[in-house]
Parts: sequence; C-alpha cells; structure tokens
Amino acid sequence: MGQSEPRSVSGMSLHGSTARLSEARRVAIFGGTHGNEMSGVALVNLWIKNGADIQRRGADIKPFITNPKAVEKCVRYVDTDLNRAFTHENLSASGGDEFPYEVRRAQEINRMFGPKGSPEAYDVIFDLHNTTSNMGCTLILESSKDHFNLQMMNYIKKAISPASCLVLLNEHPLLKYSTSRSVAKHPVGLEVGPQPQGVLRSNIFEAMRVILKHALDFIELFNEGMEFPPCTVEVFRVSERIDYPRDANGNIIAMVHPNLQDCDWEPLNPGDPMFQTFDGKTIPYQGSCTVYPTFINEAAYYEKQQAFMTTRRETLAASGIRKA
Amino acid sequence: MGQSEPRSVSGMSLHGSTARLSEARRVAIFGGTHGNEMSGVALVNLWIKNGADIQRRGADIKPFITNPKAVEKCVRYVDTDLNRAFTHENLSASGGDEFPYEVRRAQEINRMFGPKGSPEAYDVIFDLHNTTSNMGCTLILESSKDHFNLQMMNYIKKAISPASCLVLLNEHPLLKYSTSRSVAKHPVGLEVGPQPQGVLRSNIFEAMRVILKHALDFIELFNEGMEFPPCTVEVFRVSERIDYPRDANGNIIAMVHPNLQDCDWEPLNPGDPMFQTFDGKTIPYQGSCTVYPTFINEAAYYEKQQAFMTTRRETLAASGIRKA
Repeated sequence: MGQSEPRSVSGMSLHGSTARLSEARRVAIFGGTHGNEMSGVALVNLWIKNGADIQRRGADIKPFITNPKAVEKCVRYVDTDLNRAFTHENLSASGGDEFPYEVRRAQEINRMFGPKGSPEAYDVIFDLHNTTSNMGCTLILESSKDHFNLQMMNYIKKAISPASCLVLLNEHPLLKYSTSRSVAKHPVGLEVGPQPQGVLRSNIFEAMRVILKHALDFIELFNEGMEFPPCTVEVFRVSERIDYPRDANGNIIAMVHPNLQDCDWEPLNPGDPMFQTFDGKTIPYQGSCTVYPTFINEAAYYEKQQAFMTTRRETLAASGIRKA
Repeated sequence: MGQSEPRSVSGMSLHGSTARLSEARRVAIFGGTHGNEMSGVALVNLWIKNGADIQRRGADIKPFITNPKAVEKCVRYVDTDLNRAFTHENLSASGGDEFPYEVRRAQEINRMFGPKGSPEAYDVIFDLHNTTSNMGCTLILESSKDHFNLQMMNYIKKAISPASCLVLLNEHPLLKYSTSRSVAKHPVGLEVGPQPQGVLRSNIFEAMRVILKHALDFIELFNEGMEFPPCTVEVFRVSERIDYPRDANGNIIAMVHPNLQDCDWEPLNPGDPMFQTFDGKTIPYQGSCTVYPTFINEAAYYEKQQAFMTTRRETLAASGIRKA
C-alpha cells in the first residue's frame, strides 16, 4: 500500500485514521522450523520448561517446536524444507504415510494453529530463524498491507534503538514461499545472524530474546487498548535471487567477492564486485540500479541456487491501529 | 621433546646437529574428510582439474577427495567420522559391506596412501579442514618428535608473517585420535576458520591456499637439498576437553560466555567467565592455571561433548634437517 491511499485497508474498520483490529489473543512462537538453527530451538525449549518470560496479560502464548525430528538430528529438514511446505496443495491433501515427513508435519501444524486463512487461525505466529549471513536482526514481513505487523515492527525498531532491526518484505509474485508462520493471521519471521548451523552463540541468542520481548510487549499494549498512531516503516522489498556462477555440470566456479561478503543491507551498485572466481577474477554486479543484498552466502541456500537476494528500499505507511 | 635433548631423534641419522631425512617425494592433499568443510573440497576439486598451482619439482603431489559421499550430501560424514576411523583395529579388519561407509573408505585410503606405519606409506599428507571457531590458520602437528613437520611449520610461519599461523600439537595419551592424515609418515592437519559448515568464504579459501603454497615450497626446497638449521617452534599442546554444562537428560543449559566466544588462543585464567546459562548466570573457569582455549564453540563438537579444548603453550626445539 502506498502512502497516498491509507484508507484502502482490507479487513479493518477505520475510525478516523485509526483502524480497529481484533485483539491478538492467540500467539505462537515457533522454534526449530529448521532443526539446525539453534537460537530458536534453545529459546523455545527454554520457554516450554518455564514460560514466565513470555507471559503477557490478555494473550495466550504458546512456544512450539515445529520440526522435532530435524531438531533431534540437528539438520535443516528430514525430507523436505518445512518452511516451504505450507502450500494450499499440501495442506488440503488427504492421505498419510506416503507424504514426506515435513508435509505431514505441516498438516498437523495447520490443524493446531490454523487452518491457514480461516477465522480460527492463530492471531500471530513468530517463527525463529538463524542465518549464516551477516544480517543482524531481521524481521520478515509477508504483506505490505499487514498494518498490525507494520505497527509491531515500528514498535520493535524504536524499542531496541540504537541497536538496529531491519524489515525484509517478502512480498513477491514469484519469490514468496509458503512458510510455517503463514498459518497465522499475522505471520512474523525473525532471522538473526550470523550464526553457523548447529552452533549456539550467546550474542545471537540474546538478540533474539530481546526482540521477542519487545514484540510480546507490543501485543500486550495493543490488547490493553493502546492506540498506535499512523507511522512509516522502512522495509527492504525482495527483488531478485542471484545464483553463484556455475559450470556446465552445475558446480560452483566462484565465491561471493570479499567486498560483498558480510555486507548484507549495504548498497551494491552496478559495476561493484560481486563474485570472485577460484582463479581470482572479479565478476561485477551488472544490474541497472543500486540494490541492497541480503542472505549473502547463507549455507542453506546453496541447494536453492541462491548466493544472495537483492532487495529495494522503500517506506511503507502504516495506518494507526487500535483494538476493536 | 624438550629443548634440553635435541639429539634424541628417533629414526634419523644425525650429522653434526643436522638430521638427514628421506626426501618427501610422495605427497597427498586431502579435502572433504569432512564433507561440509568447503575450503578443502573446493581447493582439492580445483587442483584435480588443474594441478599447475601445486606442482613442485622433485615431488609427486596428489589432490584427493577422501569422503566423496559426505561431500555429495554436504554433511560431515555419512555413517561415522572418517577422521576418527584410521584405527589399527579398523584398518586391519577384514570383511566388507557390513562395515560403516567411512570404515570401508578408511581401508581404501590406507591401501592407496599407506599402509599406515609402513615404509610404503606416503611421505606427507595435508588434510584440509574448516572450523566454525575463530581459530584463524592452524597447523595441526601429531608428534613433537616430527622434526620434518616442525621445520615445515617454522617455514610456513615465517613465510606468511606478519599474518599468523599457529600450531596445535595433538599429542595426548587420551585425546589423540586416528586421523585420515595419520596414514602418512608426516601428517599435517590444516584447520582454517571461522567458516560455517556448508559455506565457502573467499577469505578462508585464500588463507588455506596460501598456506598450502608455502608448505609445498618447503617440500620443494627440502627435496632440492636445502639445509634447514635448528629452530624452535611455539606450539599449543592439547590439554583438556571441556564440555558444555548439561542437565540430567544431557541437554545443554549454558552457552560459551560472550567474553570467551571467538577468543581462541587467548589466555583463559582461573576465574574468567567461561559459560553463560540461559538465564544469564556466569560460570567461571575453575582450572588451576592459565590455559589457551581453542576449537571454541565448534559446531561439529556438540555431539562430541566438547565446548572447547584447552591447550598449554610451549616451545619445541627442532633439529636442523637436510635431505639424506
């Protein structure tokens, strides 16, 4: 939604400039959607044992391990990527044991926290992820029209300042995928890095814990009736997926260039070094304008033919919101 | 061997202060002993296609992927850790398909590059590894009495200065294990990090390439008859394995403390913070003297019940050496 049309807010009633939204009573925190991303696994397991830190007035908050088999093996997934499995086709399929483990698990999760797209679905699902990329704290937004989430992200960004927390808008006709959190009315991805797969770093654990704290505080304030005035949120909209240079057999023949490595969210201009071949040649970025790369050299994306993702910076307008 | 007894050099003939050693004609470079440690996999694959960079006069240098199945799956190992599989028991066992894949592979490698401990064994094997720990460039030495390797390490340290390259001496009655490289007369481990599993970073690739270059230069000079005078080499001798604090079910209840994380090779004194529990309590190091931790928070060592390893600094004396 552009700034020029703040009233065309679907599914909300507008009172003056303030949208009235249903309270966010049922909230889930998913960890272990990828079984080797350890911060979410550790935090969710901790909160399952002792939920004091995540209790908030007016909300029922459920910590949940989404892919326990992958967590047990400390792998991303067992049969197929759970965080791509929440398609309409998978969720509506009937049958059982012949499906991959993660498809059956997606159906179970959809029954528990959904059904996806229905009024019975959970209000908010936070899904906790780590990346090997130097992305810092990133909130992933699935829709530019989700004013509740935009307000939450604005709240979190202000609360953790001067530390920073960026917003990745994963709203793209081709590059959007069917996430675990998409079961909820308001899906929130949280991606914190850099952290190697299978490793638990205290700084990343702590950063994730703090963001969750502020997110839950926002939900409590909202449920208590606080009004959040209109605001703007800077986001990075997913644009293009860039693969590694490969030979005819599909083998990688170049690495992320040292000038680009670890520079997630920094501008990449046409002509800037992008890859370095094994024999030391530089391959420049040949796009037509400045982009902001992210998920640079993420371990899990080698198999997805992605060296990094380009994004475009834009500013979204969020309506004021208040509990209906 | 201490500095006070530089003459007790087994298996070498001494001429004055210079030991005469056989030339190092057969040399192998192993990559992919752990299939998700990508620098070695990429370098070895590159050199298999084009060996110009690793050719040296007077030596036959063979790049070799040791665990191709693990490389294909991008995992550390398929059935069991190949780099622990070169035990006398495994290598002398007869039989076949009933053994784990890596045990059969160890037997194959031992036939090709060994037999381990025999005069027919390869002279030098370099085994290329990555770690998620902030260890920088580390050479791993298996015996304080291997004067050829000590001289090589001294040569490399000088050649790459002012960049640094440390030596880990893995000579311990209980903590030594049966590595792939142990098949050779002079086994050299090369461990470069930090790099997440499954990720190829250009800086780590380049650091590993440069160390190998100097190592092979040393072999060429040695084979050409250059004399290397007596020297001393600072090493870090493996001392103790420290596990994460765990609950009664074996679950980790604390992380490496932020003050220790990434501080490989820096002194850890009694009373210094070592772990941080999930609820923020600090657990101090309670040893009796200063140690130098390494392999801090290595991903692959969670399953080996090791949060880090302590080492003691010492200086080894290497005899002068020259080709026999």
